[in-house]
Amino acid sequence: MTTQKHRLALVTDNNDRYLALIEAKQLPDLELVSTLSEANIVLAAPPKLAPDLDMADQLQWVQSTYAGIDALLGHSLRKDYKLTNVKGIFGQQISEYVLGYTINYFRHFELYKQQQQKRDWQPHSYQSLIGKRMVIFGTGAIGSHLANTVKGLGIVPIGINRTGIPPRQSAFSETFHINEAEKALQSAEIIVNTLPNTPTTDGLFNEPLFSACRHALFFNVGRGQTVDSNALLRALDKGHLVHAFLDVFINEPISQECPYWHNPNVTVTPHIAAISFPEQVVEIFAENYLRWRDGFQLQNLVDFDRGY
Amino acid sequence: MTTQKHRLALVTDNNDRYLALIEAKQLPDLELVSTLSEANIVLAAPPKLAPDLDMADQLQWVQSTYAGIDALLGHSLRKDYKLTNVKGIFGQQISEYVLGYTINYFRHFELYKQQQQKRDWQPHSYQSLIGKRMVIFGTGAIGSHLANTVKGLGIVPIGINRTGIPPRQSAFSETFHINEAEKALQSAEIIVNTLPNTPTTDGLFNEPLFSACRHALFFNVGRGQTVDSNALLRALDKGHLVHAFLDVFINEPISQECPYWHNPNVTVTPHIAAISFPEQVVEIFAENYLRWRDGFQLQNLVDFDRGY
Repeated sequence: MTTQKHRLALVTDNNDRYLALIEAKQLPDLELVSTLSEANIVLAAPPKLAPDLDMADQLQWVQSTYAGIDALLGHSLRKDYKLTNVKGIFGQQISEYVLGYTINYFRHFELYKQQQQKRDWQPHSYQSLIGKRMVIFGTGAIGSHLANTVKGLGIVPIGINRTGIPPRQSAFSETFHINEAEKALQSAEIIVNTLPNTPTTDGLFNEPLFSACRHALFFNVGRGQTVDSNALLRALDKGHLVHAFLDVFINEPISQECPYWHNPNVTVTPHIAAISFPEQVVEIFAENYLRWRDGFQLQNLVDFDRGY
Repeated sequence: MTTQKHRLALVTDNNDRYLALIEAKQLPDLELVSTLSEANIVLAAPPKLAPDLDMADQLQWVQSTYAGIDALLGHSLRKDYKLTNVKGIFGQQISEYVLGYTINYFRHFELYKQQQQKRDWQPHSYQSLIGKRMVIFGTGAIGSHLANTVKGLGIVPIGINRTGIPPRQSAFSETFHINEAEKALQSAEIIVNTLPNTPTTDGLFNEPLFSACRHALFFNVGRGQTVDSNALLRALDKGHLVHAFLDVFINEPISQECPYWHNPNVTVTPHIAAISFPEQVVEIFAENYLRWRDGFQLQNLVDFDRGY
């Protein structure tokens, strides 16, 4: 009996690290190959693979190292293979990011930093986070993890999704249908977008939606395409939003001319709210590979039509 | 039947606010008086009351608006009255402070702020908080609240107290006796002092204790007197500590010459980690007043010998 060998190519920003981690796993019947044309399996960062996708003649399966796979969804790109992403490993990191900046804001950390530089001892009053309402767009793995975490700090998490039905065993105090988003936003102190980029979410955060907000913090840790940039800047000008924390953008890195950089009410971070730690990605890949080899259904399979 | 009137004097930084809140409570048999000599009950910020304590000829009970009552413990000060403090209202605020600055540190928020000013898009790798060990000195109301909160973020809370016995229903993963503190510190990434100032804790954080630390963050949200300042600065120099977040000091405000101000590895905040919100203090006072009036034991009674 001859066993068929599977051939894996790596298309990531960190191939050496991934190579070492995958070799340490000693996965059966798997060999690593150096060109896309030899491979039937590819472990890839989507924006890095997209331009070379057609070179993979024998492609059967792409395991994305990202959660966001929108770079592989373009109309002109082939979709004759199975695409899986990574899930369930970002909730913690997103929660740290959102909670950290939220505390930073409400507890005046930047003001105290400035005062320290001037040797100025000046206490300022504040409110604790207890009872503040956080409206979270997206009630999937990331949104649910965030809801659970912030609830532990006394924040009231409110979910927005396409059904209005809360996920099972959820920490959300209330869940609204996306069509009722404006109602939820009116009483929100903190708004967090965790949505992926799909045709449905493109430009979702527009002028009408922002106009419903009242002095809220806005976090975008989903995708840049979900936000109308001009509407966001106007919402900051008008006070509908008091501060925006932006980690994702339509084009990354953003240009030197981008108005976000120097807006005092915008915090720009370079897409670091959640990163794929190779150790975690390889765990997911290894489990999926064994399923693939044994003919079982892959986990985290992306539906090309839905876009997630 | 005549009812005896109780006479309350206010000695706080915010007498107008306290007056309005107490009047709104309509407490029976209580009148507000404007001088200490008329009062049998005083609601006071301890450092503000201490110099005038002898003027209160008829003093029976002082309700402190602070948790820390060390300003009233001096050898030369009278102790012929009942002293109660406020408890149970600071855990949330301390948790926000410690967690906020911890995330700030591990997630490089200050670096990203600097980069934004230079329009520099540069991601940096990081570790999440999961599995980091936080050693908390003091397993009372504040330490226990903190342990519970940080556990929700995946941090491993370890308690230090005078018995080595964890409090009931505690979130602490382990609890060490104070004599074993050095052992606990060796594997700590984060150290938090929540201890009050007592003869036992005075100068507790000294050179031997700091020498046991390995690249740890140090928070002082307890009392300034518990830390040997020179030992702390040497521990930062030698790398036993990588950063100190200091909210309390032996003398407040600290002087312009204090070396903490300009040390890049020290964050100074002006005693704001937890403040007494008058609404919460008045709730505690009102409940205690009704107990007092009816002859029941006061809550949060301070033992002058123990010092807390």
